[in-house]
This record gives sequence, C-alpha cells and structure tokens, in this order.
Amino acid sequence: MVHFFGGLADSSASFTVTYPWVWVCRNSKCVKENVDYTRGVAEEELYSLAGCKLVCHNDSMLWPIPRDFINISHTFVSFLPKDLSFKVVGASAEATDLMNEAVDIFVKQIETTEPASFFVDKFFPSTNQKVNIKIVITSNDTELKLSTEEKYKLVITSSPTKSETSVYISGSSFFGARHALETLSQLIVWDDTIPALLMVKNAEIRDSPAFPHRGLLIDTARNYISVAMIKKIINAMSYNKLNTFHWHLTDTQSFPFISSREPRLALYGAYSPGQVYRPEDIRDIVHYATVRGVKVVPEFDAPAHVGSGWEWGETNGMGQLALCINKEPWADYCDEPPCGQLNPVNENIYPILGNIYKDMSELFRSDIFHMGGDEVHMPCWNETQEILDWLKSNGRGNSNEDFLYLWSYFQNRSLSELDEAYGNKQPVVLWTSDLTDNGHAKRFLNSSRYIIQVWTESTDPTIAELYRQGYKLIISNYDALYFDCGYGALVGDKPNNWCSPYIGWQKVYENSPKKIIAQFKLEYNEQQILGGEAALWSEQVDGTGMENKLWPRGAAFAERMWSDPNTNWKRAEIRMIHHRQRLVERGIMADALQPEWCHQNEGFCV
Amino acid sequence: MVHFFGGLADSSASFTVTYPWVWVCRNSKCVKENVDYTRGVAEEELYSLAGCKLVCHNDSMLWPIPRDFINISHTFVSFLPKDLSFKVVGASAEATDLMNEAVDIFVKQIETTEPASFFVDKFFPSTNQKVNIKIVITSNDTELKLSTEEKYKLVITSSPTKSETSVYISGSSFFGARHALETLSQLIVWDDTIPALLMVKNAEIRDSPAFPHRGLLIDTARNYISVAMIKKIINAMSYNKLNTFHWHLTDTQSFPFISSREPRLALYGAYSPGQVYRPEDIRDIVHYATVRGVKVVPEFDAPAHVGSGWEWGETNGMGQLALCINKEPWADYCDEPPCGQLNPVNENIYPILGNIYKDMSELFRSDIFHMGGDEVHMPCWNETQEILDWLKSNGRGNSNEDFLYLWSYFQNRSLSELDEAYGNKQPVVLWTSDLTDNGHAKRFLNSSRYIIQVWTESTDPTIAELYRQGYKLIISNYDALYFDCGYGALVGDKPNNWCSPYIGWQKVYENSPKKIIAQFKLEYNEQQILGGEAALWSEQVDGTGMENKLWPRGAAFAERMWSDPNTNWKRAEIRMIHHRQRLVERGIMADALQPEWCHQNEGFCV
Repeated sequence: MVHFFGGLADSSASFTVTYPWVWVCRNSKCVKENVDYTRGVAEEELYSLAGCKLVCHNDSMLWPIPRDFINISHTFVSFLPKDLSFKVVGASAEATDLMNEAVDIFVKQIETTEPASFFVDKFFPSTNQKVNIKIVITSNDTELKLSTEEKYKLVITSSPTKSETSVYISGSSFFGARHALETLSQLIVWDDTIPALLMVKNAEIRDSPAFPHRGLLIDTARNYISVAMIKKIINAMSYNKLNTFHWHLTDTQSFPFISSREPRLALYGAYSPGQVYRPEDIRDIVHYATVRGVKVVPEFDAPAHVGSGWEWGETNGMGQLALCINKEPWADYCDEPPCGQLNPVNENIYPILGNIYKDMSELFRSDIFHMGGDEVHMPCWNETQEILDWLKSNGRGNSNEDFLYLWSYFQNRSLSELDEAYGNKQPVVLWTSDLTDNGHAKRFLNSSRYIIQVWTESTDPTIAELYRQGYKLIISNYDALYFDCGYGALVGDKPNNWCSPYIGWQKVYENSPKKIIAQFKLEYNEQQILGGEAALWSEQVDGTGMENKLWPRGAAFAERMWSDPNTNWKRAEIRMIHHRQRLVERGIMADALQPEWCHQNEGFCV
Repeated sequence: MVHFFGGLADSSASFTVTYPWVWVCRNSKCVKENVDYTRGVAEEELYSLAGCKLVCHNDSMLWPIPRDFINISHTFVSFLPKDLSFKVVGASAEATDLMNEAVDIFVKQIETTEPASFFVDKFFPSTNQKVNIKIVITSNDTELKLSTEEKYKLVITSSPTKSETSVYISGSSFFGARHALETLSQLIVWDDTIPALLMVKNAEIRDSPAFPHRGLLIDTARNYISVAMIKKIINAMSYNKLNTFHWHLTDTQSFPFISSREPRLALYGAYSPGQVYRPEDIRDIVHYATVRGVKVVPEFDAPAHVGSGWEWGETNGMGQLALCINKEPWADYCDEPPCGQLNPVNENIYPILGNIYKDMSELFRSDIFHMGGDEVHMPCWNETQEILDWLKSNGRGNSNEDFLYLWSYFQNRSLSELDEAYGNKQPVVLWTSDLTDNGHAKRFLNSSRYIIQVWTESTDPTIAELYRQGYKLIISNYDALYFDCGYGALVGDKPNNWCSPYIGWQKVYENSPKKIIAQFKLEYNEQQILGGEAALWSEQVDGTGMENKLWPRGAAFAERMWSDPNTNWKRAEIRMIHHRQRLVERGIMADALQPEWCHQNEGFCV
C-alpha cells in the first residue's frame, strides 16, 4: 500500500517539499504529528484525518450514535466503488423496490465522495477487496407510520484469509434497513493518502430510535421554498435519521399549494404563478422522501393563519370566506402582518376545506394530519357582525368562552370534512393554543383523537396539564427548537426578533423530552411522548439562508431524538464537528461551528 | 404593448384562469390590486411589481441612495439587451480597458436578468428602442487609492419623438464611472408582463461617497474560503459600492497564503495542500476586484495571531520562530485556541517577514497595508526565557511597560522590513490594542504613519483619545459591525458567542461614524475618519454560511458609508427589502428579512 501525502502546489517554488503532517491514533484521539519519513510507512497504518477518525474512536464518529449496541474494530479494509455488490431480500416486491432505490442513492453517494485535496494524484490502485452487502427486510411496511419499527442490525465481517468483506443488514422494515445503509455509509470514507475508500474491517451494530416522531417543520408560506431546496433538506434529514417532514404549506402570507379542486386558492394566494407546489411536485417530494426514510406530514393551518388565497368569495357570490385580511392596525388582530382568519359561520368554507383535504389525502400518505389551530385572535371575530349574529342565534354572546365555542364548532366541522376526505379517523395534530390551554383541551378536544404539538417554553405548566390529561405530545418548545430565533427584528424597534437569542447546537442537544416531563415530577410514559420537531419558521428565511440555519443544529436535535443520550453535548462535540464536515462533504451548507483547526486537532477547542 | 399576466400552471385544473393581481403606483406606493380586465390596459401602464418599483418612487429603489442629486422620471422605456450600444472615452488606454471589462460585466448581468415567473411565454417582442451609452472618464487613475475620486454623473435622456435613449456617464476616474454603471444597472429591470427590460425614461444623478474607505473584512484563516466564494463576495460588494476588501489572510489557526519566498509557511500552515491561495489566485482576485471597483488590502497580522505555519524553525536550525504554539491552558496565553505569538527576539523572523512583505508587495497593489497588531498576550512572552534574557540585556525587566517596549521594537523592525519590501512609506493600519490604548499610541506609533482601525464598542473613550491625538481612524466597532456575533458559543458553557446578540441590519444602518465622534463633543474632521469596515470573522463561518451573514447587512453598512443619510432605517426599509431581492436575483445568497408578502405589499410590515 502506497501513501501519498501531497506536495506544495505553487509552481513558482524553487524547491519541492512533501506535506509535513499526518494524523495518528493515540489513546483514542487523532493527533496531528510531523511525519517521520525515516521510519517508513507500515502496511495498515493510516495517516489521513479521515482515516484516523474512522478507526480511532470506538463510535467511529457515527451520528446519531447507535442506541442499542456498538462494537467496531479499529482496523480497516480498502476498496473501490466497483468492488461493491448487493443482494436485497425484501418481504414484498414493493419493499424490495424501495430498498433498491435506497441502494442506488447509497452507491451514488459513495461514488461521489470527493477527495479533500486537489493535489493528490487521482489514480485508483488495483484493490481486490470484494464487499458483498446483503439486506434482509422482515416486514412489508412501505409507508412510515408511528407504529413502524425502524430498528436494524448491521454486521461487517472481513475474512482474515480472503480479500472479502461481507456486510449483513437486517431491518424490521424498509425504513430500518435504510437507516442501516445510512450507518454503513458513515463507516466508509475516502482516504486521499492511499487513495481508496476505507471501511471498518469488522463491526456489529444494533440500533433503534428513542422516539417514533423525529420531525423538522419547514414553513413554505412566509417565504416560498423551491422543490429543489426541499429535496436538499430531505437529503440532510436522511443523513441524520430524522423521519418526519412537517410541511407548513400555507399561511396568511401566501398559499402556494395548488389544490386541483380549489385552484383559485393558489391563483390568488401564491406569491407568483411560479411559486407554487403542483400535485406532481408533491407526489415527487413524497416519493423522494419515502425512499430516504422520511414521511411527509402536511399541515393545513386554520382557522387563523389564513388570508392570501381566500379573497375571492365576495366577487363570486360566496360571501367573505376569510375575515380581517390585511386589516390594520395588524397588532390588534394578529401576531404579525398580515392578518386573516377564516369565517367559520360562512357555510361555504366547509366544502372548500373538504376539497383541500381531499386533494391532500390523494397526495400525502401520512398516518397523521396537522390541522394547525394556533393563534386565533378573538378581536377579529368580535368585530364581524356576521359572527356576532351567528353567536346570538346560537344563544351566545361575545365573551372569550363564546369564541372558544365558535372555534370548537369550526374545529369539529373541519374534522368532519377531514374524516370524510380521508375516509378514516386518523390522529390529528394541533398546536398548543387558547383551545388547549387553561383546561380547555379536555372540554373541546378528545385526547384519543388529538395529538398536541407543544411550542411553549420547556417549563410551561401547560405541558404537564396536557400530559396529565392523557394527550400524546410532540415537543417543539420554542426556547430550544425554533431555529429562526435570534436574528434581527421582523418589524418594530426591538433589536432582535421575538424568540431571541439564537439557540446554539449545545442547547438543542440538551433539550430532552424526558427531562421536560421529569421536571414536573411526572412518571414518564413513552406512549404519550411521540417525539419532537425542530422548526424553521420562514418569516426571515428562504432558500438563500436556510441550510445553515437548519444544520448542524438539526443534527444535534436528531441525535436527541434517535439516541436520547444520557451524556451531555461535551461528550458529543468532537463527533459533532466531524459530522458537520460530513454534511458539508455531502453538499449540505451546514454552518461552521469552529475553525477547521479544531477538527484537525481533537480536543483542543474546549 | 401587450401584457401577459400568466395563468395557472396546474395541468389537472379543469378550467383556465388568469392571474388576478397587478401592482399599481398610488401616491408613491406600489399597491397590489385585483386586475380590472374590463377597463383594458393602457399603453405605458405598468402592472408588474418590478416595473412599479422602478418608476413609482422618487429614488427608483437605488441602493445605496445617491448622495448629491437625484431626479428620476416616473416613466419608462422598454428595450432588449441587443438594443444597447456603448462608447467609452477613457483618459488612458488602461482606464479604457478596465472600463470595457466593466461594460462586459454590466451587459452580461443585464442579459441574465431572470424572469421571476416560469410560466410566462418567453418570447421577445420586437422593440426598436435604441439605448446608446456614452462613458467619459476624466482621470487615468486605475489603482484605487484613498485619494481617488469616485464621483460620477449619470444622465438618461429619451427622445420624445424618436425611439432613442441616450445615457451619458462621466466619472472622475474609472472607479466613479463604474459606480455609475452600477447605478444604471439598478435603473433597469426585467418586466415579465411585457416582457422586456424596462429603464427609467429620463434621469439625472450626481453622486459621490461620504467616506473613501468602505470596507469588508474577510477572515480566510480561521476557516478557509474558496477563491470562487471570495469572488462572489466581491460581486456583492460591487453591487453596493463598497470599495475595500480587507483580507485577513493568516492567523494562528492556518496560513493559507503561499509565499513564494517562504513556501514552508503555507506547507506547514495551510489546512490542506488544496486550501491555499497561490500567487496566481491572488493576482486573479486583485484584478477581478479592480474591475469591480474594489481594492484588496492584505493584512498580515503579527506578532500575535500567528502559529500554524511557523513550526519549522527549530528543526531547521533557526530557533523558535513562534512561541506558545498550541499551548495549554490556552486561556492563559491567548483569546481563543490555539495560541501562538512570534518570537520578536529571534532575529530569523525579520528576513522571513521581509519575504512575506515582498511577496505581498508584488501581488497586492493597495495604497495601504494592514499589519494587524491586536491581542498580544504578555504571559506568553513572559514565560519564555529567551525573551526575558533579551529584555534583561536591554536593561529591561518584565513589567507590562517592558513588554510594550518589546512589542514596539517588533513593530518598528517589521515596519522597516515592510518599507524595504514596498520601497515606499505607505500608510499602515493597526488594530486598537494595548499598544494604542491608555496613551500608548502617541508614545509608540507615529500618527502621520499609522491609521488605527477601531474595533471597540462605539462608546469606548479610546476612540476620542486617538482622534484627539490626530490619528486617522477606520471604524469597525464590534457592537454594530461584527457580523459573526450572536451565534452559539465557540467554546465553553455560555449559550452564545462573546459579542452576542446578533446585529440586525437596522443597527448596522444607524451606526454612523459621525455620530460616534459627535458623542464625545468633538468637532468632526473628515480627514481623520477614513470610513469603516464591517467584519466577518470566520471562527464560526466558512463558505457554507457566509453570504447570508454578509448580506443584506453589508448593504446596510454600504449605504451608511456611501450616502451617510440623515434619515433612519425606517426610511430605508422598503428600499432595503427590494435591494435584498435584487441581490438574490443577482445570485447573492442574502438572508431574508421579511416574508415576501412585505415586498409585495409596501408599507404594511411596520
């Protein structure tokens, strides 16, 4: 085996010199040392940073760290992409098809692993190491549900005598097997001093997630996000074993979802005719996500967070579909400009909602649906005569209690439309709101039907209240999981936006649902904590500055959701810095956390 | 003239509909209105947002806003790129050559102006509007100096009878004329409802900058930044009339600058053989910047901020060139890991410095040089016996005063090397530091030679002290102009980095050097305030998350530096939102500030 260390690239240098640094594994740490050419280079000795990181640590820098069992050798085999072969044994043709797509993605990624240096001779030595990968899937589940088992086993065995390595993967479902492939991909690096791919020589890993719902919320309504960028986000999710893309599709600002049955919504509500999601775009995204282990959960937020797209009722003889659209002063009627709320007493909105749900039911195949339901502002309804008349005719006045009644009326009517559209009674998610707080939830929302997504602070007693009442929860406390916090003011004179400061990855990492429940002295019931979601609301985000806000913080969140470690961020820091580099090498524009020096000099940046 | 409004793109829609919105100029505001097809469409009436923004406002959304005189018609002409013709009258062949390059950049940008909508028929109507641009340059200055006049005049005159528009540009220098072209490019938009380019019909603009030094500091040492990304930054600078790229080339963490005379510095000090700047890269960048009106000022920071690249002294019989390299605990010897400081009593460092300066003098053609000089830590020197011996032999002890003496000795020796390398005595910039504060500056640094770059808080009395002592200042107060502030911790347990919170564009915009001087009740002397620099230190930044940290905040800074308006950010907000969109359309990944709704609905997001 020949090592190339590269030389100086400057053509004007009057003498040639060889690269002076190597990385050597010393006491489970990769140490940068001056190369000692005099002693020669031993077979099976590694000098690159990438190679060292692969075999020096017990965890081989995997992210998220496997939860159940991990045993990885500190030795390696080298091979080339052409040496890979696959055998997929699926429980059904459909599962096998999905797995073959996942294998293609895996191979393409291995093939495009880029050498870090431009100056290494890029020839491939002849290796005769064969790597045979066998994948066995034991269930035929091809749609990811909360009940889907995502666990997997991964065994790498290299023959001591033959140039042959076998990789055995078994997954309870396609989704588990795909996660195993992701893990395997992290056990393979490009080493440009050899140059070849390196893989750990022997390994056994058993792994399964701590939480079934590991989500990322993307808001495509405040600003439009391109289909290409959505796919990049799904790529990065798959690298982190996040499994739920919560798509906040519409809001007051815009309505980019083209509903085939109600096309005027996007026609009026999209920012422009090009800033839309067509049915074919959504089908494409849903499939793209599935083969990457990600479920797409649509949110149609109502009755607030509605406006753009609903302006055409009156000119079409249907009355006001939405109220308070763009009403000023906005602060009296909503949380941010522009205002807008559905008109729940206009009977015409329910068939429209039904059509939206029908379109969504045909496009999205998720086992839960998000109905939004946050931030209803009573003053908007309170100053609409049509609503006051309706309340009166229902024996009601205009107290907060009366408006809760109206809201609940809307919620029940919408739910009926949803159920009819989907032809089932799937679980429905709602945000914490006035309808869920202060004892309202148990009066208005059936806990066997509704999942509550908590976006309050982690210490909010509402969390304990909902938990005690038996609701299943998705944790998205804004003080750790809102990735849009910390930037400049959206409007007004304050120097920073409402949920400042910026949340560092360390805080994201430490944000444990179990600890949140424990602080209330409540017994932990894993049936009730489905998991969590990190959210990137897009008032101040669009495709231009999105990836570096999502990553690597989304990775910190992902390890909390998958591995739920008992250790703190400090134990994860070296691995995190490496994983961030991994994401960048895979084309994800993840923010830098430290100087590259810290990546090259393990343990010095503390 | 035919208007196309686009339709709905959904192939599954059972009926076709036309786009319902237009933008109409009402009382100097672009208002989104439901299109009224019944009344027909008048000639010379505009319906696109881009078109409306171009002609509705008195300032035509120019950024930075012209400072001396502006008179722009509210009418437009439409034309196509092929209708443009140019005549350049330069004061010298060299100036003409530069201008022709700038014209090529201008034309290419006009040609690639992208329609916002994918669904408009992209055919070009035949227009016969001729646009003849004449550019006159009156000085032959082709290197940007602090004394270079950047003022320009731009006159657009459309014939009322013929289909002909003449654009007359005069610049005191190539740099002024280039700024005029930038202004002109902002007076041209693509209107996809026509579809054609629109330009204001008549205009007169006279313009010149408030400050001669309008800089951006980029740090390529904490993390490496690719040449391609540096060029993108220079593009964006040129769109904002920023004129100084302050290149913090090297630091303790890495030494990416390939010095032809001292190649071991980069060999040892670069993060990898590929993460370097070769002489040809730098020549390329310097020329690239010049044709875009930008001067590249190199910083070689010493005697602190040094380490990587200087490790080879002892093994080459030259003694320790740098001290405290990677020394722990780092907090005792430097501000962030890793530590390192030059060894000022090792005579071998001065010829090396001389060689670095010689290489830089051949590559960079700026009229000022930045010697860094910040954050020297006395404990590093204090525990080096070689230094204590030297001080003793010079009749000195180890008090702070003695180390200042040593520092000043280093500074004087380095300056001699610099002067010899450049063959002149150009102005030299130093950061505020212990050598400039507490009355030290006047003892150690000649105010006719040294410019001080202030990076303290805006209220620091040191600013007044240095100003009174007659130093020329460059303002970079970190509390408004450090764009790396506000993110997660670099090291340690605090939730956010040292200079948090994140600085919004509004604060950047309001950060006026004149106000900073005025707070000290000092009379303003424009000779002493050269301008300012915004800084993006790269401990937590690399190419992946760089552009959205720089922009649009860098644009807010640019308007302060160029126009120095008496009005506050609120007066600039609508224009800022539009300019941010302009940057994005030109390929700059500028952060979003508000929902696109705010751009489409002027004045509602306040």
